[in-house]
Amino acid sequence: MRTTVSWQPHGTGTTLRRTPLERRDLRADDLAVRVDYCGVCHTDLHAVQAREDGRPLVPGHEFTGVVTETGSEVTGFAIGDPVAVGNIVDSCGTCAMCRAGQENFCHTFPTLTYDGVDRHDGSPTHGGYSREYVVRDRFAYPLPRGLDPAAAAPLLCAGITVWEPLHALGVGPGSRVAVAGLGGLGHLAVKIAVALGADTSVISRSPDKADDAHRLGAREVIVSTDPEQMAAARDRFDVVIDTIAAPHELGPYLRLVAMDGTLSHLGHLGSVTLEITDLLVGRKRLSSAGSGGRPATAAMLAFCAEHGITADIELLPSARVNEALDRLRRNDVRYRFVLDLSDLD
Amino acid sequence: MRTTVSWQPHGTGTTLRRTPLERRDLRADDLAVRVDYCGVCHTDLHAVQAREDGRPLVPGHEFTGVVTETGSEVTGFAIGDPVAVGNIVDSCGTCAMCRAGQENFCHTFPTLTYDGVDRHDGSPTHGGYSREYVVRDRFAYPLPRGLDPAAAAPLLCAGITVWEPLHALGVGPGSRVAVAGLGGLGHLAVKIAVALGADTSVISRSPDKADDAHRLGAREVIVSTDPEQMAAARDRFDVVIDTIAAPHELGPYLRLVAMDGTLSHLGHLGSVTLEITDLLVGRKRLSSAGSGGRPATAAMLAFCAEHGITADIELLPSARVNEALDRLRRNDVRYRFVLDLSDLD
Repeated sequence: MRTTVSWQPHGTGTTLRRTPLERRDLRADDLAVRVDYCGVCHTDLHAVQAREDGRPLVPGHEFTGVVTETGSEVTGFAIGDPVAVGNIVDSCGTCAMCRAGQENFCHTFPTLTYDGVDRHDGSPTHGGYSREYVVRDRFAYPLPRGLDPAAAAPLLCAGITVWEPLHALGVGPGSRVAVAGLGGLGHLAVKIAVALGADTSVISRSPDKADDAHRLGAREVIVSTDPEQMAAARDRFDVVIDTIAAPHELGPYLRLVAMDGTLSHLGHLGSVTLEITDLLVGRKRLSSAGSGGRPATAAMLAFCAEHGITADIELLPSARVNEALDRLRRNDVRYRFVLDLSDLD
Repeated sequence: MRTTVSWQPHGTGTTLRRTPLERRDLRADDLAVRVDYCGVCHTDLHAVQAREDGRPLVPGHEFTGVVTETGSEVTGFAIGDPVAVGNIVDSCGTCAMCRAGQENFCHTFPTLTYDGVDRHDGSPTHGGYSREYVVRDRFAYPLPRGLDPAAAAPLLCAGITVWEPLHALGVGPGSRVAVAGLGGLGHLAVKIAVALGADTSVISRSPDKADDAHRLGAREVIVSTDPEQMAAARDRFDVVIDTIAAPHELGPYLRLVAMDGTLSHLGHLGSVTLEITDLLVGRKRLSSAGSGGRPATAAMLAFCAEHGITADIELLPSARVNEALDRLRRNDVRYRFVLDLSDLD
């Protein structure tokens, strides 16, 4: 085993403390990655808050770093290569979804970057809030030159999650896209939709994000609490990307979708209730997305490099991880915290 | 006013009785239609059962007949023309949806064939369980030659309701389509999907409809109560048309949808609850449909005439309307009752 340092809650508390962590010795197709930057995702917050049994937990599933060692059969990476890792680190590789390059839908469930179970030795997986990660080479991505490694880290979860529906729904020049919720996911959805050539609007509860929305390339902000603005936007968008993290009614957002258009609901997992007439009237569709497969992740990174897209981040030394989680809980971030793990050396 | 004969419940009872009915005098763009055949739709049953206030109710919104008189400005129809009328008899004509030929989504709500309110005189509309109907010419459709007028009547509600999603979702040669529920809607969905060239399956609770499904052109029946059959059909269909009339879970049907495919939920109105992961995993879409606009209705009738498609019906004299409603309530019909109104003369 190899020893590194990580941030973990202890006992049943929710405060993360600096803690030694063991990583597996490299298998033939493994890379050891020095984790330099790791994004702080809502999932991390939920995992810390939902943890009840005191089991070890190391959050973090969007990170960038540098290869420090390669397994005996690794050919695609060399020591010193900049790489990025997202929220999936393995899959069966043989089911229809894996064969189609949609490892995120692996029929045996993909191995998650943390809180998952390794397919070979049955050990729990631990995430990127640590100075080293050992990952199967297929699930590390070369980080394109020109992308700032700190600001690129959130692309590996937030970025691919919004890329997938924009891509699957055929968004391109002339598409009318609205992004509901301007947070970690939402601000990347705006940037990518604009770069794809879409006429992009933002739907937000309050007008105070209008300046940011315009700076990100959006044409306008529709204030969701203003019934007149919402009524005026009825049936107007081919695609509405709903990134709102809290449970909420889907009806008001479905009503903004144009005929044969789609509301893609990303921000909130769990069950939703909707009135069938909100789908029926005007012939709307509802979809969801989360993460993406290897080909889509590589395509997203290439697209972001070509268009100079990274997240708007607030970079903190990893020792301030608890402050980051607390502020994320209060939605006090524009738009993604990224931890700098170099302070763990 | 003009006087005709209809079938109506009385007081707060649910038994329909032969009752005189007044129709408006023809306006300049009206047709008088002698109703020959009227389908018995689930909506009719719900309307009779839900009626609590003793108001007059004449069900029936899928009927065929013959023009007996035309308003002064009618140019598209002549006395003696065979016509068909569906569940919409007027709309604003000026909103974006009406201009797009989707009068069923009229922003001011379309005028329903019964239980609606006339846009000009504010009177309640009464349906096709009557010997005469007075209808605005734009909402009557020439009945194509070669379609049996009795078996064609259900096309005007059940037919257009399944045509719309099959058409909107681009079903054609090679599409993989499954139809859940083999009733009035379902059996027409199978016929139309097969005629569109789709590889069509039926999902049914029990295997006893397998012979019918094959006769209608389906390749196979998947028994929804058999977990092995449902598991084997996972991710297999581009389009699943769900015509099940009772409230039910959508998850098992979403799991049959292929990536980027759609579950179109037609059979049940009201609210539905679903797990977002059932949409997320495998990238599925949920839609709904009901009725259709004038261009789609005309296209559907032309398609059905070309392919010889009508409903499988049980034709009853209209005096047996109560028996028809009672048997429909018990799902004892293959696959649509049609009332012959000639016994009202």
